[in-house]
Amino acid sequence: MGAKITVLGAGLVGKAIIEDLSKEYSVTGVDIHQEALDQLAANGHIRTIQADLSRGDNVAAVTEDADLVVGALPGFMGYNTVKNVIMAGKNMVDISFFPQDPLTLDEMAKEKGVTVVMDCGVAPGMSNIILGHHNASMEVGRFECLVGGLPFKREWPWQYKAVFSPVDVIEEYVRPARYVQNGHLVVREALSDPELVEFERIGTLEAWNSDGLRTLIQTMKIPNMIEKTLRYPGTIEYLRVLRESGFFSEQEVDLGGKRVRPLDLSARLLSDMWKLKPGEEDFTVMRVTIEGKEEGTRTRYVYNLFDRYDRATGTISMARTTGYTCTAAARLLASGSFARKGLCPPETLGENQAHYLRIIAHLMERGVVYESNKTIL
Amino acid sequence: MGAKITVLGAGLVGKAIIEDLSKEYSVTGVDIHQEALDQLAANGHIRTIQADLSRGDNVAAVTEDADLVVGALPGFMGYNTVKNVIMAGKNMVDISFFPQDPLTLDEMAKEKGVTVVMDCGVAPGMSNIILGHHNASMEVGRFECLVGGLPFKREWPWQYKAVFSPVDVIEEYVRPARYVQNGHLVVREALSDPELVEFERIGTLEAWNSDGLRTLIQTMKIPNMIEKTLRYPGTIEYLRVLRESGFFSEQEVDLGGKRVRPLDLSARLLSDMWKLKPGEEDFTVMRVTIEGKEEGTRTRYVYNLFDRYDRATGTISMARTTGYTCTAAARLLASGSFARKGLCPPETLGENQAHYLRIIAHLMERGVVYESNKTIL
Repeated sequence: MGAKITVLGAGLVGKAIIEDLSKEYSVTGVDIHQEALDQLAANGHIRTIQADLSRGDNVAAVTEDADLVVGALPGFMGYNTVKNVIMAGKNMVDISFFPQDPLTLDEMAKEKGVTVVMDCGVAPGMSNIILGHHNASMEVGRFECLVGGLPFKREWPWQYKAVFSPVDVIEEYVRPARYVQNGHLVVREALSDPELVEFERIGTLEAWNSDGLRTLIQTMKIPNMIEKTLRYPGTIEYLRVLRESGFFSEQEVDLGGKRVRPLDLSARLLSDMWKLKPGEEDFTVMRVTIEGKEEGTRTRYVYNLFDRYDRATGTISMARTTGYTCTAAARLLASGSFARKGLCPPETLGENQAHYLRIIAHLMERGVVYESNKTIL
Repeated sequence: MGAKITVLGAGLVGKAIIEDLSKEYSVTGVDIHQEALDQLAANGHIRTIQADLSRGDNVAAVTEDADLVVGALPGFMGYNTVKNVIMAGKNMVDISFFPQDPLTLDEMAKEKGVTVVMDCGVAPGMSNIILGHHNASMEVGRFECLVGGLPFKREWPWQYKAVFSPVDVIEEYVRPARYVQNGHLVVREALSDPELVEFERIGTLEAWNSDGLRTLIQTMKIPNMIEKTLRYPGTIEYLRVLRESGFFSEQEVDLGGKRVRPLDLSARLLSDMWKLKPGEEDFTVMRVTIEGKEEGTRTRYVYNLFDRYDRATGTISMARTTGYTCTAAARLLASGSFARKGLCPPETLGENQAHYLRIIAHLMERGVVYESNKTIL
């Protein structure tokens, strides 16, 4: 076995990461829920540890002998966990998509001499990697990413199943969305500017402003950049009703002496409705459009991803597309190929042609295929 | 001054009742909220008492010297209050629309020799009175009542303002709706069978099954009876989303040790959004259709009510249409004209031609006009 990798979080995506990495590395899976760990036990050579990772000393303990750490915890735990791993002096790939600015940890990581790649899923993640790749060889004028993970079965009213923690999903519906237009940063409310978009194998989906550009706003000098999330048409109207009525509020309400955050109750109720049942099939759809000048010619690249639930292994598509991007990055770090120090946004993985090709090949081997299309404008 | 009347509850509707009755009777208004009572104080000859009416001894105390009691409390308090008033041996008119079967109190009322008219608002209330009137002189084959109280100003998402307590309003969206079809009782979920209906002065409204027939199911032998509630188109779709997602559930959810009923939080959040602001104008629309054989001829009667907010006195329409039906009944009881003992559904008020005409005249004097239309089929 090669390097020792500790994976923090064994949820739907964490499990896919652990299983994928265990084919090549010595992997330890850590989670607070024993049931999640029990599901890994069938695979004899995965070590499991039950631990509360909200405690820094536990993070230090479970990563002590690791060559590399992978973070697959809910967003609200992400920032502190990354910080704890940096303090433990370990290299890391993280997919928690925590809301705080990751670059505030850059200096600490550099001081410790460690490499941390964050936001390393499908989007943010592969969308950044693809943009990083083209940005290295052309003058990009426009970047657009449309992305969504959806269940095949459409059930009223939500037509949606959450693969990430429900609070993180609701956060996406509340956090103001930023995009760049003609070189200016525009802030709009989440769920705004809905538009219907056609996808060849799925039909019509609804795209709306979400705050997915993240580090690209700081790292890229591109005049037009936007990310929109996809849902089946109708879903976001109901989400807007809940948000408008205060059900996503974090402001406590007094109910006969009990102080309750509406968001907490909503996350609980919706997590029941949004639960992907065992065997329920999902898909991931992503369309990345990059336009600009390449060798003096106006060129457009369009990348289309359409990935399905893996019936053979029972792996959901969102875990495949998110998790395997993460494992591709983990391999680059474990092999020492990617050795940039500090906090590394995923676009930095794409800048290097060899790294980019290894990621694309890694995904292709797992059946996650980005079809690309080049047009001279 | 005539008889002494104690009015329990001084909310929006209770206030209109108190003010109307105070022109003719010696009225005492009782409420748990001092602010509600303060609003009555401007009118010098209304006596006010602050009291918690969920306590039976308080009900007995505040009604002790009353010749007649009027109940205008929220639905959840209604049944016990009516019971307490009967035990105190007082005649009563109630508009709380409590969910329990009112006829279970019939025997006790008869034993005490008291008259209680319940459900005495606009619908239930006037719809029953009109049906009782025609049922006395024709063989009714079909009864339909469409009714709603709405704000003139339509604000997304709810386009609705609650004049009754929000928990009572939500109860209407949850309680299974019963109607009678071809002589059989049909039970359907609330908010079902939506249909768009045109109203001359308002435009298109959406009608849906609500559980408004109440006592008519037991007292009338009519093969087809249905009641539907009216909202602006779109409102009920959002209500169904909330209901389906569990936000109207009374089943407690554990949130980090705090046990919370989703219904309580929803009522709180929605009561903020559904609050009728001072001076905000509302209207009441009702259409009652009665078909059957009258003197051997197939005949249809259609009653249309369209009542508006009273700008001169600042009285909302729902308080006018509900409250003045109640004060009409109160006058019949106070004068001794209506002396039937036991629990009396409002349809019994309409059976007597003189009582019916007094109610219609009482409402007309207050500008609440039911336009009627007779068609020979």
